[in-house]
Amino acid sequence: MIIDLNSAVEFLKNNNNFLILVHGHPDGDTLGCGFALREALASLGKTARVCCNDPVPEKFNYMGKADGDDFTPDKIIAVDVADTKLLGKNFEEKYGNKVDLCIDHHGSNRLYAERTLLDSSAAAACEIVLQVIDGLGVDISKLIANCIYTGLTTDTGCFRYSNVTPRTMRLAADMIEAGAENAKINTVMFETKTKTYVALERLALDGMKMYFDGQCAFITITQEMYRLSGSDETEVDAIASIPRQIEGVKVGVTMREKTDGTFKISMRSSEAVDVSEVCATMGGGGHPRAAGCTVTGDIEKATETVLSNIKKFI
Amino acid sequence: MIIDLNSAVEFLKNNNNFLILVHGHPDGDTLGCGFALREALASLGKTARVCCNDPVPEKFNYMGKADGDDFTPDKIIAVDVADTKLLGKNFEEKYGNKVDLCIDHHGSNRLYAERTLLDSSAAAACEIVLQVIDGLGVDISKLIANCIYTGLTTDTGCFRYSNVTPRTMRLAADMIEAGAENAKINTVMFETKTKTYVALERLALDGMKMYFDGQCAFITITQEMYRLSGSDETEVDAIASIPRQIEGVKVGVTMREKTDGTFKISMRSSEAVDVSEVCATMGGGGHPRAAGCTVTGDIEKATETVLSNIKKFI
Repeated sequence: MIIDLNSAVEFLKNNNNFLILVHGHPDGDTLGCGFALREALASLGKTARVCCNDPVPEKFNYMGKADGDDFTPDKIIAVDVADTKLLGKNFEEKYGNKVDLCIDHHGSNRLYAERTLLDSSAAAACEIVLQVIDGLGVDISKLIANCIYTGLTTDTGCFRYSNVTPRTMRLAADMIEAGAENAKINTVMFETKTKTYVALERLALDGMKMYFDGQCAFITITQEMYRLSGSDETEVDAIASIPRQIEGVKVGVTMREKTDGTFKISMRSSEAVDVSEVCATMGGGGHPRAAGCTVTGDIEKATETVLSNIKKFI
Repeated sequence: MIIDLNSAVEFLKNNNNFLILVHGHPDGDTLGCGFALREALASLGKTARVCCNDPVPEKFNYMGKADGDDFTPDKIIAVDVADTKLLGKNFEEKYGNKVDLCIDHHGSNRLYAERTLLDSSAAAACEIVLQVIDGLGVDISKLIANCIYTGLTTDTGCFRYSNVTPRTMRLAADMIEAGAENAKINTVMFETKTKTYVALERLALDGMKMYFDGQCAFITITQEMYRLSGSDETEVDAIASIPRQIEGVKVGVTMREKTDGTFKISMRSSEAVDVSEVCATMGGGGHPRAAGCTVTGDIEKATETVLSNIKKFI
């Protein structure tokens, strides 16, 4: 059932022990939602725990730490979780069919929860959680401001993407006014690269190839490159945005070799090409500007498959 | 003479033919100021031209083009120009002592103009120009919104830096509401890399060295690298931010070989080290987190000089 803001606020007021679930491989938005809501509920004398199926990266420690899920809550909340699958394998089995309230901003939300507070116009789920906290009458502490600001900035690429609305900017202004350490948070989120990432990026750039008169830039990441750099697949996402950024490139491709010998393709594009269509021809999908698919064969064959399909659209 | 907002607005209302000067090697803020002000004055039936000592990069074309300065204005305005030197050599000689109104946000402004409207709390000079335009009673057109947004986002690294205030965020919200193409502008300003830049970055990363247990990352850019990549010195600024971004690095150094055989040093730091002090020991200066100096000798000697001075502060 889709509910409105007031109903969500009433639900929180009428209960006392909450388990707040964030999605697996947690990011700044889901954690910002979780930690801000925990703080707000605690300030009302309620008990709330934030739990995650996966470890929370240390860089998020300034918002707090995740709790163990060894307690029996009255109610279970999921924040920024569009699908029970995204909770992670264990948590999906344990809690997938028991979520009492989901607060989310994904238009694709599967409405798996008993109640869902959904606003797909919000750039970050934190925009909605902030409205809930305001509705609860809780003052915005510095910690809450840091958490909400983190969600806003991470889900918008530091206010760069097209999902940013005037509201996003104004809420960020309010959070800075309430004490959010905006510059510090942005440094941690956007300006810190691990040594292993830098080593992997160097190898990736060294091997980058251009095709179709510079309209396609192609990066290949092999298992050997992970070994040489000390990096792993978790660090490839940032690389995937590089090929498309090069002047004149319409389609940027990052092809990563998986341990099972298949290749995962990440495709990014400018306005000229709809890469969700390109990937669909290879059994994948996604958005017009960012899509993906899986291809098989050895490196040469996989590269050829991808290039021949791009050629049809360029 | 320092003047207030009302006096600046009256000055613009009482005159009709303006030459608007932007600084040399123009950036998004000075051009955003110039083009927005030209548009606002034109909408009041006044004549205004935007002139620059140097060519304006094509990527700024969506805001308009610069005019020739072959006309006799009643009044001369400088925007985002802290010192007549920054006008560029020719323009300094021609206009340096003739500026009737300067609108600026640099606390270091030399007050060279007849009247100066200064607000050093503004993250971008565009924040001030927008207040002036509001004071003139001009509606914010889509073009003006694009210009002002450009200044706000480029002078703050896309709202990333510590100069961002709640006002900056709220004015950006207003500009998006007035039609600014925020996502498109940010793609052009922050996500487009020339092929020559990518080639130079690759060479730079290949040669990057780490010192003092990973606390210092050091990049050297030689004249040979410009030749190999087809790039030039104008593209080094973006590279200078890379070494400091690596996890654990306290001081990031970019050393570029000049054509006269000297080396220009750009130093960036985390909170731990004040690089303006480090650079001062070599006759340079700057800010605590970003500073520079010039050193002489061959590459090995220059590197050694810089490292030995950093060592004292690490």
